[in-house]
Amino acid sequence: MAVKINHNTFITENSPSICSFASIAGSKEGEGPLGACFDQIEKDSYFGQETWEQAESELQKRTVQLAMKKVNLQPEDIDYIFAGDLINQCTGTTYGLRDLNIPFLGIYGACSTMAEGMLLAALLTDGGMGGKIIAATSSHFSTAERQFRFPLSYGGQRTPSSQWTCTASGAVILSPSGHAPYVKGATIGRITDLGITDANNMGAAMAPAAAVTIKKYLDDTGKRPEDFNVILTGDLGIVGSQLLLELMQKDGIDISKQHKDCGASIFDPDQQDTHAGGSGCGCGGSVLCGHYLPQVQTGEIKDMLFIATGALMSPMLSQQGESIPSIAHLIHISHSKEGA
Amino acid sequence: MAVKINHNTFITENSPSICSFASIAGSKEGEGPLGACFDQIEKDSYFGQETWEQAESELQKRTVQLAMKKVNLQPEDIDYIFAGDLINQCTGTTYGLRDLNIPFLGIYGACSTMAEGMLLAALLTDGGMGGKIIAATSSHFSTAERQFRFPLSYGGQRTPSSQWTCTASGAVILSPSGHAPYVKGATIGRITDLGITDANNMGAAMAPAAAVTIKKYLDDTGKRPEDFNVILTGDLGIVGSQLLLELMQKDGIDISKQHKDCGASIFDPDQQDTHAGGSGCGCGGSVLCGHYLPQVQTGEIKDMLFIATGALMSPMLSQQGESIPSIAHLIHISHSKEGA
Repeated sequence: MAVKINHNTFITENSPSICSFASIAGSKEGEGPLGACFDQIEKDSYFGQETWEQAESELQKRTVQLAMKKVNLQPEDIDYIFAGDLINQCTGTTYGLRDLNIPFLGIYGACSTMAEGMLLAALLTDGGMGGKIIAATSSHFSTAERQFRFPLSYGGQRTPSSQWTCTASGAVILSPSGHAPYVKGATIGRITDLGITDANNMGAAMAPAAAVTIKKYLDDTGKRPEDFNVILTGDLGIVGSQLLLELMQKDGIDISKQHKDCGASIFDPDQQDTHAGGSGCGCGGSVLCGHYLPQVQTGEIKDMLFIATGALMSPMLSQQGESIPSIAHLIHISHSKEGA
Repeated sequence: MAVKINHNTFITENSPSICSFASIAGSKEGEGPLGACFDQIEKDSYFGQETWEQAESELQKRTVQLAMKKVNLQPEDIDYIFAGDLINQCTGTTYGLRDLNIPFLGIYGACSTMAEGMLLAALLTDGGMGGKIIAATSSHFSTAERQFRFPLSYGGQRTPSSQWTCTASGAVILSPSGHAPYVKGATIGRITDLGITDANNMGAAMAPAAAVTIKKYLDDTGKRPEDFNVILTGDLGIVGSQLLLELMQKDGIDISKQHKDCGASIFDPDQQDTHAGGSGCGCGGSVLCGHYLPQVQTGEIKDMLFIATGALMSPMLSQQGESIPSIAHLIHISHSKEGA
């Protein structure tokens, strides 16, 4: 079982394997700099369905099915699945997964969902409480924008700090044994709120949560940024990434050489008019599964930290003048099963 | 660590202790047949705040604080907390808990949240991955009704099968050792959808999910209804409870002697105009913590099953003509640490 080394930080004992991973993205994401990395690009933003919400459900279902297909698993081979998304009542997830009949644990962490699900799946697998556990998430530009900001047909102008919700999904399968990548450790995040109230500046709201969680893992494990090839955040975007580097620098920690951000990498801001970058649960999920996990599998990346950040914001509470609480969960992913 | 006996059913090895539990309810719940069981009744539906959403946050925070206070724990003594609620983006939870600074794992299971959180907390505690873990949830009549059904000021007439969302919260603390009650086992639910589309008949939507989960636990463990003093469902209400008994009877399982439902018990339908009974995450949470866990602690109840049921419905998807997927998670709670 995983060893709890300080309240919310864990080191796994048996290094559970991420034995399969899959990513599916929309056409805009497919045209971006990382387009070639995704398993599938779907050109139809409706995914063959009638509404955007049904489209997101179809997207997440297909991604979970693809992760299973890659390792010849059927739904009945899976013990249970952790999944969630951005949409009210997590319908992208619940309506997407209901036909698969896999025991289901719903999670809500906004864009931190991919790391939250992987963390829980890894701890339970490592503790012998699961043979094959899936963690999955999704987001869809059209479901998220109209829910969190403006009706799409309103055509509102977007601010420079705003991010573009990705149409994308990622899914992983955790197993007690198997090939690389392996999960070596994890830190559960704390809700952090420094008073940002602008729903178009989520990067600034989320950066402090990422800084708190990264520092906690480094402090608790005695590791340094140089111990990792990549320190990957979920969707801080261009504005939030800069802020994270500054916040870490203030504490004397320089992660500028290792730091990458899924949101800042998935689009070309000049060519794709995406302002501060991508966002959404599926941004971190798809870029991790499409671009990074294959490199950990081959050993090109030896060790990496994945810190998915979530802006726990609500249009209702924003209308009531509230600020945006944020959270970031961390997992340490490695090419080697042995060693620290 | 807990032993997985069949995919989604677990028997705990060390019987983690529910070392503290607390419940707070609103005035209508306080006037009901179980009113005397709650730790606190709050007469102000705003809980001293300015909006209902802030009120629900305050309610959940106070309940978590009370559970800690009862056993002299501070937030820094808690490893992490599982919590969620019914409100979009789970703001009752995130805004309520942000000041406590406890590492946080957000869950979404609608009214199944109390059982989902307890199940995860119990498995991780039993696996040595947590010293003190909290599971909490809440609901508020005024936040839920206007979000899921009609604006309160509209004054719409309620149908006979409709349920009354409780203003209530429950919180428990799981610990590897301590006094009764103990968690002995658990079953993770599957999403079940038999095609009910009426958001005013959630009991009918949720009853099949409860039946599936209860049968799974009995089948996997070889136990019979007679092995339990109480088989407690969350908020099927009067209509859903009747349906559950019929569904179980069809499979030759008679739980009529053991079955109780929090939603069917919390109000007096004749005196309180609550139609089919109470509902909401806080209904099951507060009745479990207020009425049942004290009886397990004293030994008046030796063994019970708690099956919290969630209607994973969404106004958006209902408007799109969709049916209501439902889920039910189960935990087995016992007065004795030893024995099956």
